[in-house]
Amino acid sequence: LNFASDNTAPASPEILAALNEANVGAVPSYGADPITTRLRRRLNEVFETELIAHPVGTGTAANALALATFVQPFGAVICAEESHISTDECGAPEFFTGGAKLITLPSSNGKILPVQIEAVVARARDGGVHHVLPQAVSITQATEWGTVYTPDEIAAISATCRTLGLKLHMDGARFANALVHLGCPAADIAWRAGVDAVLFFDTTLAEGFERRRKRAGHLWSKMRYCSAQLDAYLRDDLWLRNAATSNHQAGRLGAGLAALNNVHLVQPVQANEIFAAMPASVIAALQEGGAHFYEWIAVEGVDAPVIRMVTAHSTTDAEVEEFLELASKV
Amino acid sequence: LNFASDNTAPASPEILAALNEANVGAVPSYGADPITTRLRRRLNEVFETELIAHPVGTGTAANALALATFVQPFGAVICAEESHISTDECGAPEFFTGGAKLITLPSSNGKILPVQIEAVVARARDGGVHHVLPQAVSITQATEWGTVYTPDEIAAISATCRTLGLKLHMDGARFANALVHLGCPAADIAWRAGVDAVLFFDTTLAEGFERRRKRAGHLWSKMRYCSAQLDAYLRDDLWLRNAATSNHQAGRLGAGLAALNNVHLVQPVQANEIFAAMPASVIAALQEGGAHFYEWIAVEGVDAPVIRMVTAHSTTDAEVEEFLELASKV
Amino acid sequence: LNFASDNTAPASPEILAALNEANVGAVPSYGADPITTRLRRRLNEVFETELIAHPVGTGTAANALALATFVQPFGAVICAEESHISTDECGAPEFFTGGAKLITLPSSNGKILPVQIEAVVARARDGGVHHVLPQAVSITQATEWGTVYTPDEIAAISATCRTLGLKLHMDGARFANALVHLGCPAADIAWRAGVDAVLFFDTTLAEGFERRRKRAGHLWSKMRYCSAQLDAYLRDDLWLRNAATSNHQAGRLGAGLAALNNVHLVQPVQANEIFAAMPASVIAALQEGGAHFYEWIAVEGVDAPVIRMVTAHSTTDAEVEEFLELASKV
Amino acid sequence: LNFASDNTAPASPEILAALNEANVGAVPSYGADPITTRLRRRLNEVFETELIAHPVGTGTAANALALATFVQPFGAVICAEESHISTDECGAPEFFTGGAKLITLPSSNGKILPVQIEAVVARARDGGVHHVLPQAVSITQATEWGTVYTPDEIAAISATCRTLGLKLHMDGARFANALVHLGCPAADIAWRAGVDAVLFFDTTLAEGFERRRKRAGHLWSKMRYCSAQLDAYLRDDLWLRNAATSNHQAGRLGAGLAALNNVHLVQPVQANEIFAAMPASVIAALQEGGAHFYEWIAVEGVDAPVIRMVTAHSTTDAEVEEFLELASKV
Repeated sequence: LNFASDNTAPASPEILAALNEANVGAVPSYGADPITTRLRRRLNEVFETELIAHPVGTGTAANALALATFVQPFGAVICAEESHISTDECGAPEFFTGGAKLITLPSSNGKILPVQIEAVVARARDGGVHHVLPQAVSITQATEWGTVYTPDEIAAISATCRTLGLKLHMDGARFANALVHLGCPAADIAWRAGVDAVLFFDTTLAEGFERRRKRAGHLWSKMRYCSAQLDAYLRDDLWLRNAATSNHQAGRLGAGLAALNNVHLVQPVQANEIFAAMPASVIAALQEGGAHFYEWIAVEGVDAPVIRMVTAHSTTDAEVEEFLELASKV
Repeated sequence: LNFASDNTAPASPEILAALNEANVGAVPSYGADPITTRLRRRLNEVFETELIAHPVGTGTAANALALATFVQPFGAVICAEESHISTDECGAPEFFTGGAKLITLPSSNGKILPVQIEAVVARARDGGVHHVLPQAVSITQATEWGTVYTPDEIAAISATCRTLGLKLHMDGARFANALVHLGCPAADIAWRAGVDAVLFFDTTLAEGFERRRKRAGHLWSKMRYCSAQLDAYLRDDLWLRNAATSNHQAGRLGAGLAALNNVHLVQPVQANEIFAAMPASVIAALQEGGAHFYEWIAVEGVDAPVIRMVTAHSTTDAEVEEFLELASKV
Repeated sequence: LNFASDNTAPASPEILAALNEANVGAVPSYGADPITTRLRRRLNEVFETELIAHPVGTGTAANALALATFVQPFGAVICAEESHISTDECGAPEFFTGGAKLITLPSSNGKILPVQIEAVVARARDGGVHHVLPQAVSITQATEWGTVYTPDEIAAISATCRTLGLKLHMDGARFANALVHLGCPAADIAWRAGVDAVLFFDTTLAEGFERRRKRAGHLWSKMRYCSAQLDAYLRDDLWLRNAATSNHQAGRLGAGLAALNNVHLVQPVQANEIFAAMPASVIAALQEGGAHFYEWIAVEGVDAPVIRMVTAHSTTDAEVEEFLELASKV
Repeated sequence: LNFASDNTAPASPEILAALNEANVGAVPSYGADPITTRLRRRLNEVFETELIAHPVGTGTAANALALATFVQPFGAVICAEESHISTDECGAPEFFTGGAKLITLPSSNGKILPVQIEAVVARARDGGVHHVLPQAVSITQATEWGTVYTPDEIAAISATCRTLGLKLHMDGARFANALVHLGCPAADIAWRAGVDAVLFFDTTLAEGFERRRKRAGHLWSKMRYCSAQLDAYLRDDLWLRNAATSNHQAGRLGAGLAALNNVHLVQPVQANEIFAAMPASVIAALQEGGAHFYEWIAVEGVDAPVIRMVTAHSTTDAEVEEFLELASKV
């Protein structure tokens, strides 16, 4: 009964099958193989544009390497207070950028607003050379609170960035879940809305990225095994089918909890994360029943403790029902 | 009528005299000269202990180099939200430490409290390897709000640091002013209260500092000209006499402003800085009269705009009176 | 007919099988899973000691992260001129250490000598604070010239390091090949010979490594998939069986080439690399016949061009014979 | 009798006079004062162009900050083996650039050649993403061997740099001495010969420099005291008069030594440095007589030990004669 994180789930069988298929014969190393080429073509199709893609092994590396191409050592990245780059990457952006700063903004739901960005930049300009120079904004889709930026919200942030000369970076941590929730094409919440990177939509920005990846130890010599997984993930909409399942189970779990009279949701369920406030006794009952999840930080104005549950592509109807039954017993 | 910053004031005649005296004959470079030796002896006397001192050219360099010896790249420094290292050094601590983070704490008067430090460390420990590791606390004496930590307050912070395994760094930006205000020996608010560095009181911590200074371009080949100034500054209590003058004039200016019925002080005047709220019309009148000062950030709960005035060793009675006259005319 | 690099070879079937087996059910993320635990136990057995192991995705990351725990930003690493960390990692050690220097030593066969290390340290000490401080030595086993350090050679370097206060790092790029060549236990060319890291044999040195790994983006959330591969690699001596095969084929290829009267080996074949000088016409014939390999840098005192061939666990008798036939036709 | 380094000499009386003159009244801090403005105007006149100048406290800072604006962390700087940035700055360029590499070239007289630069770039391009990217060349004028690049030699290096897309940096350590030796205008060995920085001749390259200076702790709040010295140094050709004196005394000392039959010069004397080979007995006699100088690294093909002598603006005829007398006694 594991709702702690989708990182605990096994890989889809399609991914393993792709690895097995890729393991035949000699192919060039460092990304010059046909599978990596095929992946690049597939990404162009999914995003309906020519983009530049350099696979890396972790999300932390993807975020920090992209930010390092956008921001100079004396620069700054504007982001939400609870953003993963600020709270859960042990200073990776500071490391990769050579000591740039993150300027964090308060938010009630994980989303930041153009007006907040404008205020930060105005303050920094007042400070002149004594202050770091804001050079990028980073948003997470879906956010760390499981909420989803709409295309319009992203376009508004992007317009502010253009006006102020900032690059826009998106941490696509739950990108497929957001896409399924919105029911729109990938391009609509990416480059068409003005995002410069998850992948590099503005290809001139990719300069230097390859050497940064190499010197950070993120260029795999046996790249085919990385590309094969991503290729299979995008093939036949596996990524969207997986996201649809986890969103669906999150919706069911959220609705079931909301129906209990001592539980309430502190954020709308839009992706695969559920944040719910509930009595300590309910939490204890769930843990005793073998359920795994994280106790979360307190929410202002909410008395009861808050927990976070995450669903995965492998979450079953039975698991959701068992969890709800445990919660409803107290 | 310049109350913008004591950085605008000329140097004491004694400092210039010392430079002229130092400019005789050939002496060894890079700090192996007799004037630097004399300065070191004098510092030992002032602080009543054997310490290690390596002069550098700016306060930013002193702060950042000291923090870099205390904190690893994956570490963090705990400090007040308005601390100079966080707001006015363009990311110097992040640069010198190789990307460590500053964790900033809210404060009403520029001072931080042991309980706040404990909370930050507890949160970081919960996060494990995903979070940066707090390794130092930095306090400013006198603070950026012109207030002065008492020996007891520093000792309490120091005790918390020892318990939690943190180094304690003091930015001695207005150290002499604080000393004059408290009327105690320098050692009482430095190593006796548990501070590890402005100067290195725990000499084992100085390891690596000299090479860091060199590679940061802060080792002067003609060091005698740096040391001569510091030596003259400490000789015959020049530093304390200068601080006594600027504190005295700050006290007069603060008292004079507080006596006006449309002005009030937002912080007690304990060193050489005065923070006062006043109507925009008074501010305009001062500026038209040729007075220089900074408009400050808004203070919560105070409607009127706030300005900062700084006095120097060269501030005269006449200047204070002229300023007060301008302020009282509206 | 691919002798360009063993990076082009497919993975052993055992490795794929292990991945498939690992892909069952939910397990904790970030290395808290039972497969990672099993891998750690197996490493302790192979090296006959309690050690600390933190898997990462690439050799570049392993080298640079280890060096960053040994060397401060103002430090230096002593290594051979042709070492991979110096020539083929795009400055990864400089990046991870925060700007430490590599001091490179000339060598005829990829091996460095205690006397060279002593000379470098003496020179650096003369230079005082103006020079970087040597803090570690890095050797590669088997070397970039395919030669193998004996246990005695490593012990001599290690003794020099201890005397001079340097850490000893080993880039284990072809560690299994070296082991098979020497026919000794792994511990004999690792901690028993005085090496501090590939894996951390001196466990006190591992401090900070985990946070460095995390902030460099090298902590995999789904760690079981990394550990499962390494675990399978060590199980039932797969790593040694694979190395025995590639060494064997390298020996055959080397002997075959040496028997041709217009080809000669410029280094003894001790691992899975062959360096041979031959007329340009032979090289052209090989390339026309579809053979892949690298043209190498010129060797002093050798007129003919030099090529490098690498064998893998998957290299077959037929491939070696076909290659030799192409070479002997001119 | 101090010929160890011109860093041991006192400052010219004109410099002290300028400091005393500057110490009057309040002026804006951080370089917004009239003396800094006057210095900028004077630099434009000396170099016959509009340039950007940001004073810093040491040569190491000037070199490292300039290189950091030219070279990315994954880049490289090409320079002579004996260049000060490589041997005597404790890794400052690596620190300020975020871990770029120095690629050093052998030279017989401190000068590097276009053909050497071309070879380095060709090799790096072959290596692709695995190698650091050469982005700048750094030359020293006069060189570390006391020799002087002619305008033509600099122009040839500059042309190579333009072709290859590299920036050209000049460490102007003994710039005035070189100028006096050549008898040409400053512009002829600076921007007219194609140099991008000592000062920034290509003003678009200065972007970011000010923030880098600030965060490195090299922006002086009381900038007038820095500018006043530089301003006096350039006024009435003081810098050239000082250089003429030290060159003149170096010439006398060199000629006097060359006339001794057991001494010979290993480099021509073109600036204020003399490198001479002599028997150990002569060196001992000089030291016993109270002369200070550095014993230098051995020169290939020269059996006798080599020493370096440096003259300063304050070196007198009597000092040179006394030194020569000591040397001729053995």
